[in-house]
Amino acid sequence: MDFTNEVKFDENGLVPVIIQDWKNNQVLMLAYMNAEALRMTVNSGKTHFWSRSRKQFWLKGESSGHTQEVKEIFFDCDSDTILMKVEQKVAACHEGYRSCFFRKLENDTLAVVEEKIFNESEVYGGKK
Amino acid sequence: MDFTNEVKFDENGLVPVIIQDWKNNQVLMLAYMNAEALRMTVNSGKTHFWSRSRKQFWLKGESSGHTQEVKEIFFDCDSDTILMKVEQKVAACHEGYRSCFFRKLENDTLAVVEEKIFNESEVYGGKK
Repeated sequence: MDFTNEVKFDENGLVPVIIQDWKNNQVLMLAYMNAEALRMTVNSGKTHFWSRSRKQFWLKGESSGHTQEVKEIFFDCDSDTILMKVEQKVAACHEGYRSCFFRKLENDTLAVVEEKIFNESEVYGGKK
Repeated sequence: MDFTNEVKFDENGLVPVIIQDWKNNQVLMLAYMNAEALRMTVNSGKTHFWSRSRKQFWLKGESSGHTQEVKEIFFDCDSDTILMKVEQKVAACHEGYRSCFFRKLENDTLAVVEEKIFNESEVYGGKK
């Protein structure tokens, strides 16, 4: 069986994938996969996504080295969302934070509530 | 400031919202909000979503009583995904499981890896 047949991709052929730290259950990011990115992820053991803006595949960590090793994959009841538990190298967010969800809504404004753990201009050489 | 101006809604005016248990960090579900559902959620303290299939607002738990009290709200770096930590009454999934992610991919097949904690036909009276 090709397990990607089980997934209900959206009208653009994509499924949202929640990435969670397998050790402490912190939610790290959300990105999108198409069927091919999902197969590349399962076959390689490292997360591959489809970039909606650049319209190309990206191996998470291909620039930064901050790859994600997949430990467990879960499907939701409607098969239209996937949850992956991963071992995250260094950090998930390109802005230097462990998680992309580093801003918290407080009194109608967004407050940064995480510590930066790397300098993104050093890691990415000035490009995002 | 209207914080919903900070959100990058998609071409359908929606943003995916990850719902996480605030106590043990289990990811419970993912659903979609438009700006109005987001405001209803913040103002009431209970999650309200936009149903893409039924094209209407739904208060999570309106049929089952399994509401979600919002504890914390986080925005991701691109402001196109939201994470909410909630206190979940009973269970998030209409199929009787605590989390919607109760199926795990194992050797190309999906295995149920959670225990059912309520009988959905009793709670929903036979309708989903």
